Amino acid sequence: MTTDFGRTTLPYCSFVGVGEKRPRVGVGVGTDVLDLTAAAARFVPDRAGLFADGTLDRFLAAGADAWHEVRDALTAWVDDPSARAFLVPAAEVDLVLPFTVADYVDFYASEQHATNVGRLFRPDGEALPSAWKHLPMGYHGRAGTVVVSGTPVTRPSGQSRAASGHIDVGPSARLDLEAEIGFVVGVPSTLGRPVDVDRFEQHVFGICVVNDWSARDLQAFEYVPLGPFLAKSFATSVSPWIVPLAALSGARVEPPARDPHPPTYLQDEDPWGLDLELVVRINDTIVSRPPFASMYWTPAQMLAHLTANGASVRTGDLYASGTVSGPADDQVGSLLELSRNGAEPVKLDDGSCRTFLLDGDEVTISATAAAPGGGHIALGEVTGNVIARQP
Amino acid sequence: MTTDFGRTTLPYCSFVGVGEKRPRVGVGVGTDVLDLTAAAARFVPDRAGLFADGTLDRFLAAGADAWHEVRDALTAWVDDPSARAFLVPAAEVDLVLPFTVADYVDFYASEQHATNVGRLFRPDGEALPSAWKHLPMGYHGRAGTVVVSGTPVTRPSGQSRAASGHIDVGPSARLDLEAEIGFVVGVPSTLGRPVDVDRFEQHVFGICVVNDWSARDLQAFEYVPLGPFLAKSFATSVSPWIVPLAALSGARVEPPARDPHPPTYLQDEDPWGLDLELVVRINDTIVSRPPFASMYWTPAQMLAHLTANGASVRTGDLYASGTVSGPADDQVGSLLELSRNGAEPVKLDDGSCRTFLLDGDEVTISATAAAPGGGHIALGEVTGNVIARQP
Repeated sequence: MTTDFGRTTLPYCSFVGVGEKRPRVGVGVGTDVLDLTAAAARFVPDRAGLFADGTLDRFLAAGADAWHEVRDALTAWVDDPSARAFLVPAAEVDLVLPFTVADYVDFYASEQHATNVGRLFRPDGEALPSAWKHLPMGYHGRAGTVVVSGTPVTRPSGQSRAASGHIDVGPSARLDLEAEIGFVVGVPSTLGRPVDVDRFEQHVFGICVVNDWSARDLQAFEYVPLGPFLAKSFATSVSPWIVPLAALSGARVEPPARDPHPPTYLQDEDPWGLDLELVVRINDTIVSRPPFASMYWTPAQMLAHLTANGASVRTGDLYASGTVSGPADDQVGSLLELSRNGAEPVKLDDGSCRTFLLDGDEVTISATAAAPGGGHIALGEVTGNVIARQP
Repeated sequence: MTTDFGRTTLPYCSFVGVGEKRPRVGVGVGTDVLDLTAAAARFVPDRAGLFADGTLDRFLAAGADAWHEVRDALTAWVDDPSARAFLVPAAEVDLVLPFTVADYVDFYASEQHATNVGRLFRPDGEALPSAWKHLPMGYHGRAGTVVVSGTPVTRPSGQSRAASGHIDVGPSARLDLEAEIGFVVGVPSTLGRPVDVDRFEQHVFGICVVNDWSARDLQAFEYVPLGPFLAKSFATSVSPWIVPLAALSGARVEPPARDPHPPTYLQDEDPWGLDLELVVRINDTIVSRPPFASMYWTPAQMLAHLTANGASVRTGDLYASGTVSGPADDQVGSLLELSRNGAEPVKLDDGSCRTFLLDGDEVTISATAAAPGGGHIALGEVTGNVIARQP
């Protein structure tokens, strides 16, 4: 589906035009893509070289001054008649992965999601892990299998333990989605030097929508003590649009109160809670509307924590929020939670039911952000079809 | 320390010569480096372009035919008088990270290590995780903080829980080393298609020595349920030399018997057990000699498992074995095990004792492999000094 982007969003993408081979950098304008690789010389000539290679990589690395200069110049020029020659309908081009993914980290920042998962995976223990309220928990995922929206997702195989105790080897029977928001790092940091929580906007360029596909049966078998591995590494889908932080000024909200008070390096003066609404569809049936404003930890805290030990970030690092789940039953961001681990099937509009995903299912996650002055802006969507493993 | 490499090793590196800025590809010959970027046109002209950018990236991607052709031509030519003009003493050049690290995965393939850690971290539970003998456990690490031997390692900070239950925030008090062997992927695989366990040599180019620095106090606090994160992500050091698999023909041995029998995708016809001996030094005192031949899972099984769910590998993927620990007390590959979690300090030659690493400590891990016809070949070493966080 083509998203209709207003002039306050102006998200970036990388696209391949009809009959072309090399990608170009684009900007979403209504339902069109503006060819920034070609047009930049017209309205922001000093920065045109940043878009020459057809990916966002150089632009991401260029830093906040360049990001704001390009956005300001674009905003001033985009409705000029001379811009029309650079527009192509988004539906006619191929949107490709817009940047080179360096490291991929996935957090676990929703209290509701962590609580729900804890109850299902560890029914005899405390629902929340003991460190959960002290730090934004996360783990490294596989950067090489981050794919752009529209890429088919092959059902993963692996080992799992049946209720009988027998170990099965074969296609996952509990393939799930996870609705998340991703954050794209532009400016690298120095090894050995943490990034201050209030320096978020100097390092992070923008956001995307993420589906962190998960095989729950593989996960339950493998995850103790090293965490999720093959249950997550087969594919992570991202929306083709990277929405700059500058477009989210209307969405800044206070995050939930933190109790206990976090340590100094996680205390933010001007917190980055964000009022985003995600919408999860399976085969066009809306199954959930996860509210990002309910997230316990903010993306600025995630970045501060990620680097608190001295680890550096690089241009193209992607870190995701973890599954976004709100307090209501229809606000949870995974089928694990929606179906209560398979106990309560979810009914789709065609009358069929799902506990987990079937081959052929299409999962689409879209998101909107509260806009300055009211209303909402579209953030794009991430979609993917589940396909059976090829013989 | 400069390693003296015999003609059966011929390991590859990337180096920057005196007064130069751009790296060149080198080959270890005795205590010299042969400048392959300059010399390749002389003895393997058809492949010279693979070394032009000064890193191993193109050569890794070129595949097994290219790897063997270059090694055979090099072996035939290296003692020719015309080769002398391309040799520089290794001690006079800077050895840099020899390839672009794509994804980094760390396994946990030593039964002794996993058992020792289980007893220390989970004294009330089973020592080995329940899935441990069914699959090679692993997790994703941080590719962006893989550093070359010689890079100082800043002591990480983070949160940990004191014996009193109080949560501390500050420099790790339990900084550890982990002696490992790393495997470097050359040829990528296709997303959705597992790599067969018997296709290891078609994808993996060679090996290096790895120190997977670990902060045990941070790890104990954070690792449930998502695995190690900040406890490991601050630095992973690798030797500058990549030894091709072709140099290890004398080191192939039967791995330990597996009980239970692993599933089909982990059953190898011609297993890749390797008779390597690691030597761990702290400030020049040998503290351990971990035997790689004791590893339960082979690197071919690790690759098969890593891709069994359909995840693809890329050129430059690095996966490490996990800490190598043998059955004897002086064969374990971490201070956690050597000092029994701090209970039994390790005495160094200068009379001082260590439970964990102090600022200023130098850790060096070297390795040798059994050679064809007896004896051993050097595999190089990885070294690093611990430094305090800069204020």
